[in-house]
This record gives sequence, structure tokens and C-alpha cells, in this order.
Amino acid sequence: MFLELTFIPSLMVVLLSAVVGRAISLKINQPMIFGELILGAIIGNFILFTPTAQDHISVLAEIGILMLLFSIGLDLDFDLFKRSAKPASAIAAGGVILPFILGYLAGILFELGRVESLFIGASLVATSVGISAATLQEAGKIRTEVGTLIVDSAVIDDVVGVLIMTILFGFATTGTLPLENTILLILMAALFFLIPLTIGVKAIKKISEELPIQRENILLAGISILLVFAIITEGIGLEAILGAFMAGLMLGQTNFSEPLAESISLVGEGFLVPIFFVTMGMEFKIGAFTSIGPFVIILILLAIIGKIAGSGGVAMLFGHGKNESLATGIAMVPRAEVALIIAHFGFNHNIFGSDLMSAIVVTSIITTMVTPTLLNMVIDKI
Amino acid sequence: MFLELTFIPSLMVVLLSAVVGRAISLKINQPMIFGELILGAIIGNFILFTPTAQDHISVLAEIGILMLLFSIGLDLDFDLFKRSAKPASAIAAGGVILPFILGYLAGILFELGRVESLFIGASLVATSVGISAATLQEAGKIRTEVGTLIVDSAVIDDVVGVLIMTILFGFATTGTLPLENTILLILMAALFFLIPLTIGVKAIKKISEELPIQRENILLAGISILLVFAIITEGIGLEAILGAFMAGLMLGQTNFSEPLAESISLVGEGFLVPIFFVTMGMEFKIGAFTSIGPFVIILILLAIIGKIAGSGGVAMLFGHGKNESLATGIAMVPRAEVALIIAHFGFNHNIFGSDLMSAIVVTSIITTMVTPTLLNMVIDKI
Repeated sequence: MFLELTFIPSLMVVLLSAVVGRAISLKINQPMIFGELILGAIIGNFILFTPTAQDHISVLAEIGILMLLFSIGLDLDFDLFKRSAKPASAIAAGGVILPFILGYLAGILFELGRVESLFIGASLVATSVGISAATLQEAGKIRTEVGTLIVDSAVIDDVVGVLIMTILFGFATTGTLPLENTILLILMAALFFLIPLTIGVKAIKKISEELPIQRENILLAGISILLVFAIITEGIGLEAILGAFMAGLMLGQTNFSEPLAESISLVGEGFLVPIFFVTMGMEFKIGAFTSIGPFVIILILLAIIGKIAGSGGVAMLFGHGKNESLATGIAMVPRAEVALIIAHFGFNHNIFGSDLMSAIVVTSIITTMVTPTLLNMVIDKI
Repeated sequence: MFLELTFIPSLMVVLLSAVVGRAISLKINQPMIFGELILGAIIGNFILFTPTAQDHISVLAEIGILMLLFSIGLDLDFDLFKRSAKPASAIAAGGVILPFILGYLAGILFELGRVESLFIGASLVATSVGISAATLQEAGKIRTEVGTLIVDSAVIDDVVGVLIMTILFGFATTGTLPLENTILLILMAALFFLIPLTIGVKAIKKISEELPIQRENILLAGISILLVFAIITEGIGLEAILGAFMAGLMLGQTNFSEPLAESISLVGEGFLVPIFFVTMGMEFKIGAFTSIGPFVIILILLAIIGKIAGSGGVAMLFGHGKNESLATGIAMVPRAEVALIIAHFGFNHNIFGSDLMSAIVVTSIITTMVTPTLLNMVIDKI
């Protein structure tokens, strides 16, 4: 029933699925990731990779994740960010805490283990900056005050999401989370944030002013720095993707920011990132999924309600009008990259089976899918 | 003595070597590949990859080769090409036949086997278009009549080189080369050249006129088509790289040509191609090399003499002056991509050991290195 493919045919099928998925997304006005996940979910029920092909494809997908986090870091505009830092932090906090608690409680109610429930909670934390931004852009609202606020909040909850994920992964792999280790980890993380953003930025600014460097060499050097950071973060017990994000954040403050962001987004979006999303979609197994149908429906509802009540509620407290607050909450609904990375990690480390994996994939697909429709219902009123 | 690295550290070391190698190349006015091969040759004597890391790195390097051939196909300007097709073909033929015979005879004289000698001959056939073009560009002569002639000849001998390589690889794997099979292969190759360049180009032109497509989607679709072609060529008994080249040739005749060429050269030159060249350099083993020192010196001399006498001689027959003919011959001296792919194939299929592998790598390095110096000695006189 399954067709088993070697590496080059596997890669071809994955990339062609991404092409078809994106074409469908374009036709029905959905973000590209939507079609990629759907096509992945479809072919995943018919096609298998040989173990060797699977290994190679996974490596490409993982380089894709690293590039994705790298480019999120690169795109973050520090100056713009500082201006709305306070309300954005509060809105992000609302949208982090409430969904996390709701997800955790749902897990406990459905009699999942404590670690599984923590993973479910964590998977609801991070808004997909990319999808939020794309949706606002399509609605012509990204350059407005509310638009900036939403994107900033989404960036903050992404950072928080990555941090929670890092702590959770450490907890899941070692089984414990003693206080001194956690404090050490947070200290390390703080140092790791501080050093690149001070000394690192200065050093690279100096280099970038002295040397005229070709675009392909900037890309090559950028990927090298990304890998150096990934290795350092893994070395001190954090996740490689946090290193990739930090590398992007650091390089984003230098003259290399623009050419690098362009190149990385081209290599990422045009080659490696769709491999990640299609293979994520492939993890969706219809059989595993139907066995926990009710749980998935609850999870999707909590994912939507958690952000609207959490982020939208805080926006109202900060004096925004009803429609503006509602739009803020809705714009924070889509989950994607971080949720899928958490699903990927949990599944690969046998923390849960393909049923919860499929549940998280479906939640990503549905939250991504409903956001533009929901947002269009209120966006014209603000 | 050797340091053994897992995948991410291996990838980091390879990319950092490429960065350092390119910086050195820039400093001493050499093409980028020169520093990449040298750095690879240095680290190859200190660093080992774990078998898994080796596997993953090889896959990245192989995607790099495919992209390289794809972009050579893309960059070929058909209209410009037709104008100087006749003299260029003759010059290419001279530079193909003489070095092939000289290389083969050298192999036989040094008591290598017949197949090994054929591989040595084949490795001397193809000029590196990229390095030739870069050298002419630096000398400010690429837009002259001689410059165009040289680049066209280099492109033709590349195509011939890829064809010879394909036939040779088939011969080496099956052990025989019966007449009917060879004819069938050439027929298949001809069909495979004809169909994409007629029906394929028309179909894609139609699509490109109807749809506005984003750059990253053009890249994604381009890589997908590359893989489809690679799978077809392998299916009919040709080499995957010939398919990549054909895919590039076909897409180069469409509206996608320019954005695709830019994107592919960015992804290739900024990420995957240097992985190929650095790992090629790593195959150079000082011990294996010194054991066949005299052979290498002969090989390098024949590589230089073969092109100057073969291509330069034919240029003279076509009425070009002494200095022009000499410059034409010298510009055809650098060997790189095709020679290294042949070396790679021969080594991987146990046709020869790391001694001949190292010999071909060194020949590539030296021929690349001497070309600018030799060319500068005559170029001002034309």
C-alpha cells in the first residue's frame, strides 16, 4: 500500500508536494505553510522513505528549521521593537500564560501524563510570526499601530516559546529540573543573549565596514556563524534553534542584515523550509488521529480561545477598543513553527506517540486556516 | 591524530574552511575554488567525519554538484552561442581530443589499467567555464571577440566532457560497452536533449507568461524540475548531473532564466557548492600523493600542453594570430568541476585509489592556479 522511495525521488516528491501545496494556498488565499502541511498530510498516507532517505531528508529539514529561526531573528527590528515593548510584552504574556494553562489542563483532563500535558501546553504558546505578519499584510494593516503591536507581541511570545521549549526539552531528557540547574540555564541563556548583542555586534559591524563582501560570501559566512551558535547553545545545554535565532538577532543589527535576510529567506523558503513543513505534514496519520478526535477538537478550541481571551483581554486592559483588542487576539491565533518543532521533539524522544503528534499538526493547520477568515470579520472595523 | 566530528560540527568546519579559503583566494587574486580546495586539502589531513556525518555531508555535496551543473546549463546563452558555434566547436574539439589522448597514454606509460587510463584522459577534457570566464573578466577581455570564442569553446568542451563522462561511467559500471547499447544511449541522450528544448521550453514559456511567480517559488519549482530530470537521466542509464545540466539548459530559454540563475547561484555558491569543493580537497592525502609524485608532474604538464597545443593550434588554423591563439589555449587550461566529478566517481566506485584521486585534485588546483599568471603574459598583446 505504501510506496517506498530512495533519497533523490523522496526529495523530489517532497519538493513537488510543496510546489503543489503552495499553488493551492495561493488559489484559496492561504499562507504557503497551509498547503505544504496539507499536501504533506496527504502524501504521508501513501509514501514511505527508505531509512537512509528518511535520515537525509530529516537532516535537510533540520537545516531548514535552523534557517527559519535564523531568519526570524534577522527580521526583528530592535528599534521599532523597543517602542512598543511594554504593551507588547503584556499582550504576549497574556497569550502565553492562558493557552499554556488551558493546554496543560486539557491534557490532564484527558488523562495524559504530566510531561505530555506540559508539551501540549507549550505547543499552544508561540504564535507564528510569519503567518500573523502575512495575514496582516494581506489585510493591509501591517504598518498600522495595531499591526506593529501585534507583530511585536508575536515576536515576544516566539522568544518566550523558544525559551519554554528549551527548558521543557531539558526537563524531558533529564527527567528532573533542579532549581540550581534551571537558574544556571537561565543565566547561561542571559549571557548568551548579552555577549553576541554587545561584543558580537560591534565586532561584525567593524568587519562589515572594512570589507566589501559579495552576497554569496555573506550567505556562506552567515550560515557558518549560525552553525557556530547552534553548537555553542547545544554545548551549554540549550537548544540549537535558540542559537540559530540568536545568530540571526546578532547579525540583524549589522550592515549584513539586509543582504543576509534576503539570501537566507530565499534559500530557506525556496528550498529547505518547505522540506520541514511537508515532512511535518507527513507525520499526520489519519488512523492515529481519529483515535483521539474529541481531544483534537478541544485543543483547537482552546488554542483559539486562549489567544483571543489572553492577548485580546490584555490589549483591552491597555485601553484598546473592543474591535482592536479582538483583532489583536485573533491575529495571535496561528501556531506553526515552534508548535511543530515541539511536536517533532516530543515524537522523536518518545515522549508521546503519533496520536498527539498528529493532534499538534492538525491544530497548526486549523489555527492557520481560520485566522484570515476570523480576522477579516473584524479588521475593517478598526 | 585525527579529530572525528559529528554532523553539525563537520558542516561547520567545512563551511568555515570555505570562508577562510575564499578570503585567501581574494587576497592573492585566485578564483574562489582555489582556496576551497587548498583549505580542504589541509583540514583533510587532520579531521575525520563520523560515518553518519560523512553520509550527510556527501548528500549536501552531491546536491551542490547538481546545482552547479544546473547553473552552467542556465547560464548558457543559446543565441550568442550559435554565432561562434563553428570555430568554437573546432577549438573545443582540439582541446578535447589531444588532452584525452595524452592523459590516456600517460596512464598506459605509467602502467595503469585501461579503465584507469581512460578516466585520467577524461579528467583532462573539460575546461572549467567558471574559472576561464572569471579569469577573462578580471583581465577585462571577456566581452572581446576572442573572449566570446573562448567561453563558447569552454562551454562546448564542458558538454562533451559531461557526455564522455556519462559514457565512461556506464562503461565502468557495466564493464562492457556493446555497440548497440552505446548507440541506444546516444539516441536516448539525443532525445533527452531534443524534447526539453522543444516541447519543454514551449510549455514553460506558456506558464511563465501566464503566472506571476515569486522568486522563492521559482527556485523551489526549479530545484524540483532539476530532480525530475536527474531521476529521468538515471532511469535511462545516463548520469544525474547530465539531467541537471539539461534542466538548466531548458529553463535558461524561458522567462524564469534570470531570477532562477540568480537564486541558484546564490544557494549554490553561498552554501552547497563550496561543500563539494572543500570535501574534494579533503580527498587529497599527502601520503598517497607523494607515492605517485612523478606521475602528477607529468599529468599537470600534459594538462597544460594539451590545451595550449590542442585548442590554441586549432585557433591558429582558423586564422587567429599567434598571441590570440596562445591566449585561447591558455584560457582553456583550468580544469575543475567535471574533472573533480570524474575523480569522485572513480574513487567511489573503486576504479582507482586515493593516489589517482589526489593526482586529479592537485591537477585541478595547479591548472587553476597557473592560468591567470600565464594568461597575463600574453593577454596585453592581443
